Amino acid sequence: MKCVRCRGRAEVQLRAHNAAYCRPCFVFVFRRQVERAIDSEAMFSHGERLLIAVSGGKDSLALWDVLADLGHDTTGLYVGLGIGAYSELSHAKVVAFAERRGLPLRVVMLDEHADGLGVPTVAGRTRRPPCSACGTMKRHWFDAAAIEGGFDVLATGHNLDDEAARLLGNVIHWEMDHLARQRPVLAATHPRFVRKVKPLFLTSEYETAVYAFMRGIDYVVDECPNAAGATQLVYKDVLNRLEAASPGSKLAFVKEFQRTAQPAFAAAPRDTPHDCERCGMPAYGTLCAYCRLVDEVERKTAAHAGAPA
Amino acid sequence: MKCVRCRGRAEVQLRAHNAAYCRPCFVFVFRRQVERAIDSEAMFSHGERLLIAVSGGKDSLALWDVLADLGHDTTGLYVGLGIGAYSELSHAKVVAFAERRGLPLRVVMLDEHADGLGVPTVAGRTRRPPCSACGTMKRHWFDAAAIEGGFDVLATGHNLDDEAARLLGNVIHWEMDHLARQRPVLAATHPRFVRKVKPLFLTSEYETAVYAFMRGIDYVVDECPNAAGATQLVYKDVLNRLEAASPGSKLAFVKEFQRTAQPAFAAAPRDTPHDCERCGMPAYGTLCAYCRLVDEVERKTAAHAGAPA
Repeated sequence: MKCVRCRGRAEVQLRAHNAAYCRPCFVFVFRRQVERAIDSEAMFSHGERLLIAVSGGKDSLALWDVLADLGHDTTGLYVGLGIGAYSELSHAKVVAFAERRGLPLRVVMLDEHADGLGVPTVAGRTRRPPCSACGTMKRHWFDAAAIEGGFDVLATGHNLDDEAARLLGNVIHWEMDHLARQRPVLAATHPRFVRKVKPLFLTSEYETAVYAFMRGIDYVVDECPNAAGATQLVYKDVLNRLEAASPGSKLAFVKEFQRTAQPAFAAAPRDTPHDCERCGMPAYGTLCAYCRLVDEVERKTAAHAGAPA
Repeated sequence: MKCVRCRGRAEVQLRAHNAAYCRPCFVFVFRRQVERAIDSEAMFSHGERLLIAVSGGKDSLALWDVLADLGHDTTGLYVGLGIGAYSELSHAKVVAFAERRGLPLRVVMLDEHADGLGVPTVAGRTRRPPCSACGTMKRHWFDAAAIEGGFDVLATGHNLDDEAARLLGNVIHWEMDHLARQRPVLAATHPRFVRKVKPLFLTSEYETAVYAFMRGIDYVVDECPNAAGATQLVYKDVLNRLEAASPGSKLAFVKEFQRTAQPAFAAAPRDTPHDCERCGMPAYGTLCAYCRLVDEVERKTAAHAGAPA
């Protein structure tokens, strides 16, 4: 098999793109693909300060690697979720990457900082699924860190598979509110929101894995232990079947959604948020989602402590 | 397991409805479900003349059975597609059902009538996938028969699984035109269209199979031989996985689509059709889809005949 760019020996085949590449050409094409996504969606420009949310997985580290190489002003943000050995290992990988590349890194440890609330504690006390608790907590601390550090943009490593799975889930349940906001760029609709972007939204999980391997990026290979059995994985499995039956399905699903269907959903936009009465972060009710979650933890902890033995 | 209606011994369990029924209660509930779909979507009323498209499969025969029992004025329509032994067997099953029930049946045989064009001929000469050729031909002959017989409504046996698979396919490719028209009732937008309805759109394939079995309906069990490998089957498989992971998914997917999402797609309605210049049937271009297909067959047959041996 030959590289479609240089006719050298190909190392990777991409069925969705009907193409194969050698190592240097793949790295070139991967970066160009990310650059094109950034430009075509007007995600950010040179000179803006980017905060990259890094979990220690392949996607976020590959994203940081590409954005730094493209000459952007990048700082990493690691939020320690307190999920035992998984979180410790992730933390170590992120620190090692930042040191090796000489890039600045900010760290927020939820068990030490953040009212001492790690994901397992919150999920346990509220009896919410861990991924639900984790989502609310991460969104809060991402925004808080971006505002505190004066960043213009928060970039996350969500890839094509993540976006396709989320889109399928939103479509299966016809979550009109979520469909109205599923976009690769979300504008800052509140003084304590920064613009949020997903530069890898058209880049498959397989492509970022190959990129991380070719670039020698050392990342956490294991999935988060809480993800086992998550509905998201059922959607990914189902999408992989569709992709196998018809290569390119996933890319077309997400791309065409943004191009033709998303505007129909976005026609009725959600209200702009106001200020959370407690913490001042953006909120759609009296309190923001994070403060409501913290309240729930406190209420349930108190009820548990007061229950007869 | 007990019947949730009469507490007798249950014969069938419906996970999507979180219910189980004995035989008489299942038949009762099945009919009521169809009746409710008809009423809530205002599909038709007593006194209107219904033409039921029957293929010889469980869905269309179950539909005819229910509609006749509900006291509607029903006539069956069998279109012989010329697909060898499969078509012969289907024809025999439909004729036997109509005779047993003493119900009127109309028959259109594509190889004898209809310019002598059966599905295999049309698909072979145009090199279209058989299901694509078949769809165009059936739609044409359904409309033609309904108009010729002075019927008010054409009812088809599309079930929940069919509708969910079609919806998933339309969503995966974001077929905005198709999504704008995917409804259980389509009004007659042209003098040579009749109203089209799908009374089983919320009734699963499993439920119609159980109903047909309980009612002793003798139907063609085999799938159409052309359906093997059809993309529709991949969608059905994928939806069955989602249903297994979360019972009721299929029903919610189709029901919520109609309730909340479909209006967003229908906001930009398609033009109303005008008359086909050749046959006078509804057309969105100069010719209707059927006449274009017939043209293509003739052109390609002539080219083949004129080609050097």
